Amino acid sequence: MTATPLEIGLLFFPGMTQLDVTGPFEVLARLPGARIHLLWKRIEPITSDVGLTLLPTTAFADCPQLDVLCVGGGPGQMALMDDLEVMTFVAKAGATARYVTSVCAGCFILAGAGLLDGYRSACHWLSRDQLAILGAIPVEDRIVVDRNRISGGGVTAGIDFAFQVAAELCGSEVAKRLQLMLEYDPKPPFDINERNAPPEMIAEIRASARSMLDERRRSNERAMARLRAGHVDSRTA
Amino acid sequence: MTATPLEIGLLFFPGMTQLDVTGPFEVLARLPGARIHLLWKRIEPITSDVGLTLLPTTAFADCPQLDVLCVGGGPGQMALMDDLEVMTFVAKAGATARYVTSVCAGCFILAGAGLLDGYRSACHWLSRDQLAILGAIPVEDRIVVDRNRISGGGVTAGIDFAFQVAAELCGSEVAKRLQLMLEYDPKPPFDINERNAPPEMIAEIRASARSMLDERRRSNERAMARLRAGHVDSRTA
Repeated sequence: MTATPLEIGLLFFPGMTQLDVTGPFEVLARLPGARIHLLWKRIEPITSDVGLTLLPTTAFADCPQLDVLCVGGGPGQMALMDDLEVMTFVAKAGATARYVTSVCAGCFILAGAGLLDGYRSACHWLSRDQLAILGAIPVEDRIVVDRNRISGGGVTAGIDFAFQVAAELCGSEVAKRLQLMLEYDPKPPFDINERNAPPEMIAEIRASARSMLDERRRSNERAMARLRAGHVDSRTA
Repeated sequence: MTATPLEIGLLFFPGMTQLDVTGPFEVLARLPGARIHLLWKRIEPITSDVGLTLLPTTAFADCPQLDVLCVGGGPGQMALMDDLEVMTFVAKAGATARYVTSVCAGCFILAGAGLLDGYRSACHWLSRDQLAILGAIPVEDRIVVDRNRISGGGVTAGIDFAFQVAAELCGSEVAKRLQLMLEYDPKPPFDINERNAPPEMIAEIRASARSMLDERRRSNERAMARLRAGHVDSRTA
């Protein structure tokens, strides 16, 4: 195993779904030569959507050029779409990263930063169709690779995604060994997904998520308007 | 869905493998009525084995009676075996919890606190045989249920485990809906586990883990000696 430094940046933000990033973190931090940057505006505690508080390691201003930029989702993602400091940072970091990646609704942050125009992407199943608002191509897969963009679907898909990224970076032998060490040989207690779930369960989830989905749609539309007007640009930072 | 308070305690400790507990956290924190307690001696930042810093929410002294006690693993587990403050807290909290649970090498902390004597338990595959040192019965399954003890195997098994615990606490409909929301329909990039891995990969992993496994064995033997001598007891706290 080589130990070429691998600069890996994971975006932290208030209201993130922590497993979107702590799943990939657990895998990627174990790659030979990995240097992990848990990125936020400042070094200050960040609390997830359901109450886990974590500490970033690297302020935006101190982020090196990245081999991998990874952005997760969670309800806090919507507020970021209007935060030009974040969107400009993501646009800049993404413009030079070897791999530009996302898990769950993190794809909207990449797309809002102009990084997914014409790219295929995964997303959480509930919001996937909204990728089209931002010029990306929604794909119903757990892991989607399009050129140097790699994306995972909702939340736990970040773990499958991370082993795929591990294989891209370090080869399949390293990724397999890590999968064995982290015992990723899943046996979910239930067989349920968006295709086989009872229609009434899907309808109930869509109904209870409606106001969040509407808010996300509006935030995506605002982000697209700003992109068209040239307000988010990797060169403006 | 009812919202009966569910007091759920997850042990934090320096050198833990964060995914052992952040996986279950993501699931259990979303249960109706869940009140999560991220437990450590004091409220102070805790850094995981590969560098994620998290904040506990509840000091041992402020821990309520629990519906679920959950303990994860990681290399920091070995130092805890000799820490009577921790072991006595775990013994006490476990004595009154409705469910006493572990992920990965967290089983040794439960066993060292006298909570697994004669119980079947899962464990990370590399260390599983050592459960016998502490009077527990090692089982080669991803999730093991024995009376009110529920355990998961290594690291990522904590996610499968958590949906099982969710079903025990709130019924299978709630657990299935959560599995759908967190999109747990895994498709690992590789099919690899302790049974189908190349023997040379298993041998290499065992060789590189030898000193850790020896240290764990000695810590388990010391813990068993203390248990036999009555030095860890839920009544002594």
